Amino acid sequence: MSHINDTITALATPPGQGAIGIIRVSGPETISIVNELFKGKNLLEVASHTIHLGTIRNDQNEIIDEVLVSIFKGPHSYTKEDVIEISSHGSQYILQKVLSLLVTKGARLAKPGEFTQKAFLNGRFDLAQAEAVADLIASENASMQQTAMKQMRGGFSNEIKTLREQLVHFASMIELELDFAEEDVEFADRQGLIDLINKIQILIQSLIASFEYGNVIKNGVPTVIVGKPNAGKSTLLNALLNEEKAIVSDVAGTTRDFIEDQIYLDGIAFRFIDTAGIRETDDEVEIIGVRRTLEKMKQAGLVIYLFDLVNESIESIEEQLKGLLSSDVPFIIVGNKMDQADTFLQDRLIKENAVFISAKEKNNLEALKERLKSFIDIPTQSNVVVTNARHLQSLQQTDDALNRVIEGINMQMSNDLVAQDIRSALFHLGEITGEVTTDDLLENIFSKFCIGK
Amino acid sequence: MSHINDTITALATPPGQGAIGIIRVSGPETISIVNELFKGKNLLEVASHTIHLGTIRNDQNEIIDEVLVSIFKGPHSYTKEDVIEISSHGSQYILQKVLSLLVTKGARLAKPGEFTQKAFLNGRFDLAQAEAVADLIASENASMQQTAMKQMRGGFSNEIKTLREQLVHFASMIELELDFAEEDVEFADRQGLIDLINKIQILIQSLIASFEYGNVIKNGVPTVIVGKPNAGKSTLLNALLNEEKAIVSDVAGTTRDFIEDQIYLDGIAFRFIDTAGIRETDDEVEIIGVRRTLEKMKQAGLVIYLFDLVNESIESIEEQLKGLLSSDVPFIIVGNKMDQADTFLQDRLIKENAVFISAKEKNNLEALKERLKSFIDIPTQSNVVVTNARHLQSLQQTDDALNRVIEGINMQMSNDLVAQDIRSALFHLGEITGEVTTDDLLENIFSKFCIGK
Repeated sequence: MSHINDTITALATPPGQGAIGIIRVSGPETISIVNELFKGKNLLEVASHTIHLGTIRNDQNEIIDEVLVSIFKGPHSYTKEDVIEISSHGSQYILQKVLSLLVTKGARLAKPGEFTQKAFLNGRFDLAQAEAVADLIASENASMQQTAMKQMRGGFSNEIKTLREQLVHFASMIELELDFAEEDVEFADRQGLIDLINKIQILIQSLIASFEYGNVIKNGVPTVIVGKPNAGKSTLLNALLNEEKAIVSDVAGTTRDFIEDQIYLDGIAFRFIDTAGIRETDDEVEIIGVRRTLEKMKQAGLVIYLFDLVNESIESIEEQLKGLLSSDVPFIIVGNKMDQADTFLQDRLIKENAVFISAKEKNNLEALKERLKSFIDIPTQSNVVVTNARHLQSLQQTDDALNRVIEGINMQMSNDLVAQDIRSALFHLGEITGEVTTDDLLENIFSKFCIGK
Repeated sequence: MSHINDTITALATPPGQGAIGIIRVSGPETISIVNELFKGKNLLEVASHTIHLGTIRNDQNEIIDEVLVSIFKGPHSYTKEDVIEISSHGSQYILQKVLSLLVTKGARLAKPGEFTQKAFLNGRFDLAQAEAVADLIASENASMQQTAMKQMRGGFSNEIKTLREQLVHFASMIELELDFAEEDVEFADRQGLIDLINKIQILIQSLIASFEYGNVIKNGVPTVIVGKPNAGKSTLLNALLNEEKAIVSDVAGTTRDFIEDQIYLDGIAFRFIDTAGIRETDDEVEIIGVRRTLEKMKQAGLVIYLFDLVNESIESIEEQLKGLLSSDVPFIIVGNKMDQADTFLQDRLIKENAVFISAKEKNNLEALKERLKSFIDIPTQSNVVVTNARHLQSLQQTDDALNRVIEGINMQMSNDLVAQDIRSALFHLGEITGEVTTDDLLENIFSKFCIGK
């Protein structure tokens, strides 16, 4: 933080060969440093938000590259400082050379996330918004992208800000009473305050509750398909994946990496985990065997338990059900081969609220997908979803502090103890948006960013 | 080529997560297509070479990303068409989404190199220059970068153009004679023409000769260190590499990939090949063994043959020398452990023009490096270096045609035969710069480009 006035530079595009590579420079010396290397228009004289063609040259006047230089004058830039983006041919050699020339002229290589850190420190946005920038870059699907976008544009921060303002008002009343302690006045209506805190806590708790959904958005639902050998596990997995592949292949190109062994339902990723361990115990049908299998499935958020309606015996099914029902893993019971099913077995599984499909014929997969989706609780109370574990922790600490406030009031504890708990609640809310920070906290947050952001 | 009027789009930055991803759009509909998705200023009304902050939205008015849009109005753009570059957050999901929205609005996904192909077809530069763009992006060191840069800026093309103009003048004279064939006039002074062709051929041959150097610039010199076990091969390799690593580590960051097992001397890469086969035969000292070893070294452009001046016997050295001297691989004989060397052995190797070093003490490595550099013929006759095998072939075909012209004149062959050979020379020169092209040729050239360029 002592280096906020440095002029920093970094490669902002992914490493590797490409048509274009962008080098970003930010800080007070940006324009003069780049101008020393750039042959074209005099950059000291050009307007903000304009683009200029020219060459980058070394001290021997050799052309390193023909480039486009985009100029953003502070405060109308990402960092609120003067920023230049140099668009080079995407050769790693050239980009490295341009970077080292910039360093020669006085720029410093940026640390991960340092541009965004500058933007935060210069007040472009608060900490929760800055963190959303990293989430946005890491977003792999519509839900992640929409959640991060809302957060980056201030949705979450506004919510926190509202809570905080209400609390500040509250706090100032109590502090006022402290000033007049000897006179025993009461500026803050105690019942009104308790009502307000209850209202705030409902909101905080709904934010806390949204984290489970936020986590699912970010990390998907680890899903395991279990069942006896030949129950049709692979066929089901392929049926689910193939259909998905057909859908996304319309969009062309690089998406393929994202869909390997996972499907998206309403923007939520169901990741199919290949647990070799579970497969090994496939042939053990006794309860203990199934329990041991389920034990290993603890890593799964959801189990699809597949029964073969043609080849399994009722005894085998009963034994597996006994193990399954006594476990605490969320599961969906699926009866496969419905097209040639034994009605007796089917009737038994209907009691367990099973879904019936034919993986091979791709029959009724929609019903299974609907059931998968039903496992996702979409929060309704607030539009804002908490996706960040750090925010969750601060919210919980705020909630704890507010509980102590209520308790303090109810127990008619002294005002300075109550005031202290309110300050504690304000502190933890402030941690989220960065009104309260430490160097360590910032370091920790921004070190997880990519270089150049 | 029938689709030159399409509006095309592609990701122009390398795939993968990064701070920034750039999507490029080019073609007549560029501005109107992007304007449909962009919420911010009306792009139909903004000036060229300006940058605008706004959002990309889908048909449901959901924000896909906050972006910067750079606008280049034709002909002042890379393709000479209207071009827009959209600078997004570098999430693959977001970039893919923006691309698919552009396609929805009427853009087509670009083929590899299609932007550069448009630039060529619209006359921004000739074919040799277009090819240099790909070389520039692929450049991994100063020599590659400088050669490609010179070529992209027209150095090679200018040379070819000069040759071609001289030949065109020549051709028109001969053609004129054909028109007056019955009158048996001679507009073209035969001896003058032969002198001119000789002059042109000297230039063409120097360009052809430069290809060997061009190839070395592009691909480096495959180098093998050979010698008996414990002669110090690994120590020497490490000494050469480590020193290099120390030099480049000043420049920080991603260079490390480039220097793995190779060193740069005057910008030329000496790539050390690890040929396990050669090592296996290390313990065979008889001539046949060494010969067989050398046979395997055919893939090497250069062999460093290392002798241990302390532990080897004169007999062993003589046998190895016999094998080595009878081979046709370029080699450098190196005597290692010079600090404790046996003078008798040293005297024997002096006769073979050996370099003496101590790999362990890093003594005299500079002398070895000088010797390595001496193997590189830097062309002196022309500043222009041919690096492209396609250009080499066309130059050779031009040279052949010119030989036939000289032969035809000397043998007083009929003018139309001579004229035909001159046209053939012009044709092959034209292939280089793209004055003569076929769809297949263009397809072949541009398909090797990366997407987005």
